[in-house]
Amino acid sequence: MSALMGLSLVSVAVSPVWAQAKPKSKAERVAPDIKLAPEVEAAKLRDAALKSNEAYAFVSHLTTRFGARPAGSDSERNSAVWAAEELKKMGFDNVRIDTFPLALWQRGAESLEITGPFAQKMVVTALGGSGATPPEGVTGEAAIFETYQDFTTSTADLKGKIVVILQPTVRTQTGVGYGVNSGSMRRQGPEAAKARGAIGYVMRSLGTEDHRFAHTGATRFLGDEGLAALAISPPDAEQFERLLKLQREGKAGPLTLKMVSTPKFLGNGTSQNVIAEIKGRNRPNEIITIGGHLDSWDLGTGATDDGAGVAITMAAAKVMIDHKMRPERTVRVVFWGSEEVSQPGDKGLSGATAYAEKYAVAGSNETHIAAAESDFGADVVYSLSLPKASDETFKAKLGNVLYPLNIYTDRADSTGGGPDTGPLKNKDVPVFDLQQNGTDYFDVHHTVDDVLERIDPKKMDQNVAAWAATVWMIANTSVTFAPNPK
Amino acid sequence: MSALMGLSLVSVAVSPVWAQAKPKSKAERVAPDIKLAPEVEAAKLRDAALKSNEAYAFVSHLTTRFGARPAGSDSERNSAVWAAEELKKMGFDNVRIDTFPLALWQRGAESLEITGPFAQKMVVTALGGSGATPPEGVTGEAAIFETYQDFTTSTADLKGKIVVILQPTVRTQTGVGYGVNSGSMRRQGPEAAKARGAIGYVMRSLGTEDHRFAHTGATRFLGDEGLAALAISPPDAEQFERLLKLQREGKAGPLTLKMVSTPKFLGNGTSQNVIAEIKGRNRPNEIITIGGHLDSWDLGTGATDDGAGVAITMAAAKVMIDHKMRPERTVRVVFWGSEEVSQPGDKGLSGATAYAEKYAVAGSNETHIAAAESDFGADVVYSLSLPKASDETFKAKLGNVLYPLNIYTDRADSTGGGPDTGPLKNKDVPVFDLQQNGTDYFDVHHTVDDVLERIDPKKMDQNVAAWAATVWMIANTSVTFAPNPK
Repeated sequence: MSALMGLSLVSVAVSPVWAQAKPKSKAERVAPDIKLAPEVEAAKLRDAALKSNEAYAFVSHLTTRFGARPAGSDSERNSAVWAAEELKKMGFDNVRIDTFPLALWQRGAESLEITGPFAQKMVVTALGGSGATPPEGVTGEAAIFETYQDFTTSTADLKGKIVVILQPTVRTQTGVGYGVNSGSMRRQGPEAAKARGAIGYVMRSLGTEDHRFAHTGATRFLGDEGLAALAISPPDAEQFERLLKLQREGKAGPLTLKMVSTPKFLGNGTSQNVIAEIKGRNRPNEIITIGGHLDSWDLGTGATDDGAGVAITMAAAKVMIDHKMRPERTVRVVFWGSEEVSQPGDKGLSGATAYAEKYAVAGSNETHIAAAESDFGADVVYSLSLPKASDETFKAKLGNVLYPLNIYTDRADSTGGGPDTGPLKNKDVPVFDLQQNGTDYFDVHHTVDDVLERIDPKKMDQNVAAWAATVWMIANTSVTFAPNPK
Repeated sequence: MSALMGLSLVSVAVSPVWAQAKPKSKAERVAPDIKLAPEVEAAKLRDAALKSNEAYAFVSHLTTRFGARPAGSDSERNSAVWAAEELKKMGFDNVRIDTFPLALWQRGAESLEITGPFAQKMVVTALGGSGATPPEGVTGEAAIFETYQDFTTSTADLKGKIVVILQPTVRTQTGVGYGVNSGSMRRQGPEAAKARGAIGYVMRSLGTEDHRFAHTGATRFLGDEGLAALAISPPDAEQFERLLKLQREGKAGPLTLKMVSTPKFLGNGTSQNVIAEIKGRNRPNEIITIGGHLDSWDLGTGATDDGAGVAITMAAAKVMIDHKMRPERTVRVVFWGSEEVSQPGDKGLSGATAYAEKYAVAGSNETHIAAAESDFGADVVYSLSLPKASDETFKAKLGNVLYPLNIYTDRADSTGGGPDTGPLKNKDVPVFDLQQNGTDYFDVHHTVDDVLERIDPKKMDQNVAAWAATVWMIANTSVTFAPNPK
């Protein structure tokens, strides 16, 4: 990459027709660079982005000023207002905030103690959307299962017991080791335990590190019907494993636990999406949606989840503005609200749903060319995947621009696009992925330790470069994609 | 080291006079190996220790069964009773528990919030022995100082303010980066802030990592007169630094903080030292005291501070028992109680003081040859330092036994011996050091993350080998040492 970083952009004062109209805003004064092949321009943006530092500065301000930004909180709202102001100052077009309703969940007191025979306190955090114990807590014998499968297949009597599941999360580059646990063990576990008479649910955090951080994350939201559910830190789960071994060796009787968790459902509130654009100079109704989510869990400051994503995608668009390069199609940056939380009726992704239902609907004058979210931390991008049956020439040209960033083009089609593009996918919008290295992502995911210190600014810049180049290529060609499989 | 690990001990059935008396206990049945030069025997013990695994097994049981062991707690007491039973089973002589009184301090609720203009919660822990706020907390403007020196030299009005000190702890191999902060910033800081009218004291944790763990530790114990004092995690201190920068750039007014900390003084209780010996076969009244401390802070399970130290020194003695090698002098292993906490009247080290005052006193028939504590984690030993003006031949022979463990003999004299040897030093008992690599020790020191997962069993075995060889050499020669400078 170092050889490329010596290049600089040449701005030439050529004013095409679209730029001769009376300027209305800073963004509208943006003039395009001299007309070159899109891949040449994309390479220039890529190299400029590598030196921009904008993403790190943005996520630093965001996390320093607002700390945690739980869905529907004042902090999330204040950060949205601030972000919209910043986006305006940067020269984005049509900056606006769309609000939408959501149900509010708030953490209460929470603790887990082994009361006998090996009395000690554990490090815990309640699962988002989980139910409550009475204020004084519940006490019961631990029913310990080494895997979720052991729990679901066991016929043990769980009445009056506290279920403890010790299944670990496997470290992988793609994050699949997390994915295989989150839907079952975290989402369905508490409900399944309650159905069998358990009075509490405790699970090993979905985390890959062995430090004493508990990882929260959404479980199915059942309101007052939900069971109290806590995640314990990985070392606490290993402590349970050793205690289980003592039990099996006949060196100890059953463990008794005392569990307290008093979250509250606060009724309905609002959250919001922040939307900003670089309006396309030729085909402004053809939309490429990129972004991240502005909300975070309430424990850390949401630096990697997902301050990084909003900062990376914002900065990728901003490098176009800063270099007076207006794309042919409209590049729209969305900071979705409320990605993290479950909602009643087994729903979630309220912000993404509100966005898709407002913009990607029949009768709208918008054509949604493609969408993608950055929501997997701040480590480097290592592969691009495009929608099914993408144009091979386009793919090759874009791949060529990304290789110097150490990114290959995957032979497989995009399967994701990021959580907040889900509702768009359901409306046939094609999605693509700039896949990040997630090897260490679940070390801090959803913990108090998700703070600015976890971000390497140089790696962020590599992300920005990849996004700037990719989005420019899509926005300045006539490429269209087939809808992804839903 | 691997070449040495192939050696094995040869036990020869030679029964000297002392072993022909009627056996009274398992330990007393121990028979010495064939009489070889002490350095040859020490090398054999060293190599046996490298394969023993006893230390890790012990600290695993200790931390799994008892979790945190705060000074004076049931957990500390129960762990002492368990440890004494284990030591008896292993074959130690004269296993006993000495109790002593101490004042009890117990953590309460604790929190710190920035309430404006950048509302957010910090990760905190109360300093041990610190005072309390009212239950509803105190609210005040933050008086932020980048260093402790800035705080002491500033003439700023602190009346009604909450002092925040951001001085970092420098990572060093010896731990001196911690030492320069603990006496001033942690011990004296709250008292100095109170004298100037402050209503609370907040300091950057004495920790070298940048993860979101707050580190506790003793401050001066002033009972109800003490000021409430919290340590914030290193990333929270960096958050304050960024906020201070915004203030200085005129982008924000003063920060307002809300601080809650409600520890209690529970009056007097008791703690205890666990003592076990391998009685010397020729000079049983000549004592070498080694050990660690059994108490821990209340946050983690005290695996590295100081489960490791008790396990290492116990295992070093046990390898002698297991190989039927009884030393000429008595090797005494002490698990001191209550090392961590301050006491009224600016005292501390209650267990170590009780031990020194019982055993190292005029009129006692014991001669204390040397003492040392292992209390610096579980990383490798890299140097030996002996008392001032030690016999050069002895030093050279011992050094030669330790070099294969990657340990050099320091030209400088021992300066420490470990915290719990302090009261012995004051009674002219010479002390020595097996200095551990402390580079990473303050990453987890006094945090919830001080758990078994922080220990590498192989590194522990290297410690055990160093202690076994060193103690054997002292116990089987006629070496005597001059008292260390107090």
